[in-house]
Amino acid sequence: MGNYYMGIDLGGTNLRVGVTDEQGHLLQVMQIPTIATSGYTSIIARMIDLIKELTDTYKVETIGIGSPGPLNPFDGIVMSPPNLPGWKDVPITEIVQKEVSIPTLLINDADAAALGEAMYGAGKGKQSSFYITVSTGVGGGYVLQNKIVQGEHGYGAEIGNMIIKPNGPKHANMNAGSLEALASGTAIGREGKARLGIEGGAKEVFAMADEGNQAAIAIISEAMDALAIGIANLVHTLDPSVFILGGGVMNAQNELFSLLRKKVDGYLYEGLRGKVVIKPAVLGDHAGLIGAAMAGINEKN
Amino acid sequence: MGNYYMGIDLGGTNLRVGVTDEQGHLLQVMQIPTIATSGYTSIIARMIDLIKELTDTYKVETIGIGSPGPLNPFDGIVMSPPNLPGWKDVPITEIVQKEVSIPTLLINDADAAALGEAMYGAGKGKQSSFYITVSTGVGGGYVLQNKIVQGEHGYGAEIGNMIIKPNGPKHANMNAGSLEALASGTAIGREGKARLGIEGGAKEVFAMADEGNQAAIAIISEAMDALAIGIANLVHTLDPSVFILGGGVMNAQNELFSLLRKKVDGYLYEGLRGKVVIKPAVLGDHAGLIGAAMAGINEKN
Repeated sequence: MGNYYMGIDLGGTNLRVGVTDEQGHLLQVMQIPTIATSGYTSIIARMIDLIKELTDTYKVETIGIGSPGPLNPFDGIVMSPPNLPGWKDVPITEIVQKEVSIPTLLINDADAAALGEAMYGAGKGKQSSFYITVSTGVGGGYVLQNKIVQGEHGYGAEIGNMIIKPNGPKHANMNAGSLEALASGTAIGREGKARLGIEGGAKEVFAMADEGNQAAIAIISEAMDALAIGIANLVHTLDPSVFILGGGVMNAQNELFSLLRKKVDGYLYEGLRGKVVIKPAVLGDHAGLIGAAMAGINEKN
Repeated sequence: MGNYYMGIDLGGTNLRVGVTDEQGHLLQVMQIPTIATSGYTSIIARMIDLIKELTDTYKVETIGIGSPGPLNPFDGIVMSPPNLPGWKDVPITEIVQKEVSIPTLLINDADAAALGEAMYGAGKGKQSSFYITVSTGVGGGYVLQNKIVQGEHGYGAEIGNMIIKPNGPKHANMNAGSLEALASGTAIGREGKARLGIEGGAKEVFAMADEGNQAAIAIISEAMDALAIGIANLVHTLDPSVFILGGGVMNAQNELFSLLRKKVDGYLYEGLRGKVVIKPAVLGDHAGLIGAAMAGINEKN
């Protein structure tokens, strides 16, 4: 028996609603296409349908909604995520709570994945972990004693905007030389276009590097160098028990992790070399769902 | 009535032993010159004399010793601080505990000052604070809900070694372009020597800037720019409720704080501009002593 908790992963492509037990085991998941262009009223209506279907079977204590940012976790408002067009200051927790009368909270999707991995993935049993996702962008979440550190204004772990190389390349609304502008899939793709004349993005750069293309290898090495500086700076700030890396760029590639670990070691105090643990994420697509459900448990306790 | 706690500030110049109550009020302080060259046996013997003198009056619950690093807070060992010559892996808490039979712990001096300021200084009542001391070097301490985040290996808030400008100037055993190599008093003094041909260190650079010397003004502006990048990176990592800045370089200079705040704003997400709080430290010399005593309370609870 025990209690049940609901986690929701509101992505630009898929919308997933799941139920976990108190130990983070996923008992059931339902998934539908988000159809981002259908607008927030339609998306939330379909979300509520799924919630009701699952709460017919499971009496859940709380609902945690993981959403792309920017958002205000304290007031439960989704501001204007680039991959949810038309959303503007949507009070999603209020809307859902009114419909289903279950305590609902909102959490940044990277924070949710970080919490899932920390509690039931690669960080299980550790005092602290720093989750980094490297895909189109670079995001993260810092979890200390199974709690997300969101910060005073909810900007904790917005590490894509960390400055790695002052006056470096610009990317979106971020600082010049930001981590995201140097180490994301978008950044690798941009350099592929500039130096190799290809249009296939990061995937094509990785494929060319695998075939031994020196310019492609250099692009990846430079991206990993920027990521290594970011990680070393986090070590000298928080010294977390483990770094957990997910996202399409890292994609659990062994060689890439080896390269990254070596580069990180080069930027650490001597006493720390070889001691910083950098592991691939293990929960895959389910990290955010499980983490959002766990955020509900944390809130309740 | 209530309980008493002892804090010790083991500095390269002065050795201070004090007693606080549970609310962090300093009840009595004794201070003697450390005479760093006299060696650790002599220094610890004199420290124990002061402890005994005070514990004759106050029955203290715990003793917290703040010491320069590197040190191992978990095992209570002072490794080899540059300004305590001859110290090498000294098990200071064990030595003190044997003599006085009171639970004793060791804490990094910057962490102690951070905890003192967080609990009873500029961060009082806040959820979280990041303390930064800018003097000969650059150190810090991150306090979340009145606890120091020391990290897995005790390297939390070793922010002097954060990389701000890859391939920038080298300083001591730190990364090229580290925060300490760019923003410390030592760094300002080094640039003063190189660009102005002066030997008087940071103090002389500040004096010349006050007189309108453009090169001196540029040196200070560049140091504050490096510090601003470091602070912005910490905002996008932890978003603490308040930054508390102490140390001889900042020295509560209003104009310098204004310049720094403006530069920090330039490196933040738009939604954060004007919202990040940067305040001068207020406890002065006593921050470390009070914080070391508070670390004892935290350990006990």
